[in-house]
Amino acid sequence: MEKILIVGLGLIGGSYAKGLTKKGYEVYAYNRNRNAIDYAKKNGIIVDGTNEYTKDFVSKFDRIIFSLYPKVFKEYIKNYGDYIKNGAIISDVSGVKESIVDYIQGILGDRVEFIPAHPMAGKEVYGVENADEKIFENANYIITPTKKNTDKGIAFATKIGEDLNFRKISLLTPKEHDEMIAFLSQLTHCIAVALMTCKDSQDLVNYTGDSFRDLTRIANINENMWTELFMMNKSALLKEMDSFINCMTILRNFINNGDEEKIKNMMRLSTERRSYFNKK
Amino acid sequence: MEKILIVGLGLIGGSYAKGLTKKGYEVYAYNRNRNAIDYAKKNGIIVDGTNEYTKDFVSKFDRIIFSLYPKVFKEYIKNYGDYIKNGAIISDVSGVKESIVDYIQGILGDRVEFIPAHPMAGKEVYGVENADEKIFENANYIITPTKKNTDKGIAFATKIGEDLNFRKISLLTPKEHDEMIAFLSQLTHCIAVALMTCKDSQDLVNYTGDSFRDLTRIANINENMWTELFMMNKSALLKEMDSFINCMTILRNFINNGDEEKIKNMMRLSTERRSYFNKK
Repeated sequence: MEKILIVGLGLIGGSYAKGLTKKGYEVYAYNRNRNAIDYAKKNGIIVDGTNEYTKDFVSKFDRIIFSLYPKVFKEYIKNYGDYIKNGAIISDVSGVKESIVDYIQGILGDRVEFIPAHPMAGKEVYGVENADEKIFENANYIITPTKKNTDKGIAFATKIGEDLNFRKISLLTPKEHDEMIAFLSQLTHCIAVALMTCKDSQDLVNYTGDSFRDLTRIANINENMWTELFMMNKSALLKEMDSFINCMTILRNFINNGDEEKIKNMMRLSTERRSYFNKK
Repeated sequence: MEKILIVGLGLIGGSYAKGLTKKGYEVYAYNRNRNAIDYAKKNGIIVDGTNEYTKDFVSKFDRIIFSLYPKVFKEYIKNYGDYIKNGAIISDVSGVKESIVDYIQGILGDRVEFIPAHPMAGKEVYGVENADEKIFENANYIITPTKKNTDKGIAFATKIGEDLNFRKISLLTPKEHDEMIAFLSQLTHCIAVALMTCKDSQDLVNYTGDSFRDLTRIANINENMWTELFMMNKSALLKEMDSFINCMTILRNFINNGDEEKIKNMMRLSTERRSYFNKK
């Protein structure tokens, strides 16, 4: 039975705890707020936990997953990195990689291995009370190793992804990951927010079909988490935003000028490219 | 048993025919291409039909629904409006209203009543072979009467909406309809097309979650129909595009400047407004 510590017992940390417990792991947790620990223990999601982050507690574990906001993760490693046992392997769940991976690996040096991972899953609700390991079943899990990582570290992160039943596990560089996330996830959240704020659309609710609802589902957004993710992936995100705004402006001008053939060509390219994303 | 003629037996016309036949109407059809008529007759979707648009045939009907592209609809009324019987009531399925309603009502004068309607439903496939009256069950149906319409005309369009089991039937002015459509439907299609064409994203398929798929489903687009709809609603659409591009640019600049509080405020407004669209 593998013993593991989850640091941060929110929606994702809680869902990790739930899924890994079901797989037979011996799961412990730290959380700043004691209520989450009590809830998780009472409901069999963890064996035990604490709301006090001490060296005595943390140094007991060979395997730790940090499920914190990226900035908070950095602070915990900076301030308490020495709590972690020599030879331990740690991983994370952060949605940005370039701006944290070198930093964390730099602090930990050769003493502790940090293997970065990103579970591309979520729900529009918070907290361990809403934890649900099924959110991983239809989701992707990305591991972003650097030259500092070992096969053993990559194998650990891979095993976690497998044991949580992710649909697909991939390896990317931190840079590739951040570019991909900027386009597929962050840009689409920006679009939903801009669409939802550019018009007071409340009186249109009665006429709204499923397309508009699909498009704006992610406009219900955790402002603290996403602002942090945007700021920590600023240059990649700005590049995608500029490219998208440029394409919208081109289409706008085609429509304004009545360039029907050019509009149709753009739509043909759109249809062709979208076909690659049809589910197999 | 009400006798009705459907002019244009594509996906929408075919779905009208199917649904109205099931409700006990005696449905006839005209279609330029004979194959659709043969298919529909063979499959019990219509009683009979023709691929020859003649006065002899058309003048037999008191009730006609034109299920044609808006431009083609205008041509049929301009060229063959006199085929329609005195006192008949006709309706349509066009996704734009201001640019056709006055024109059609102007040609028909007091001789024939045109009551405009828009079934806000569709599928990403074409033709009577894909006709399916169930596409209306979760959809909105908008009637856009003018001062020239009578209670009898509005009652006819309403009855069609009811008999096809639309979720909701509403009355709007043509102008209100076009503004609503520009934002909820046309702008969202523009966004999906721009997102799909601004990057060659084929190599990202492996990392794509459901959010991106939801957002780009409508990027699979019928270029002839949508280009026509965009051009026929140009000024309302350009207004919404400019407003959206402006909001994207504001958000882009907040991110570029690191104005975290302003980003969070935008996200809070987005979350608040999106909540109105949660399904009851």
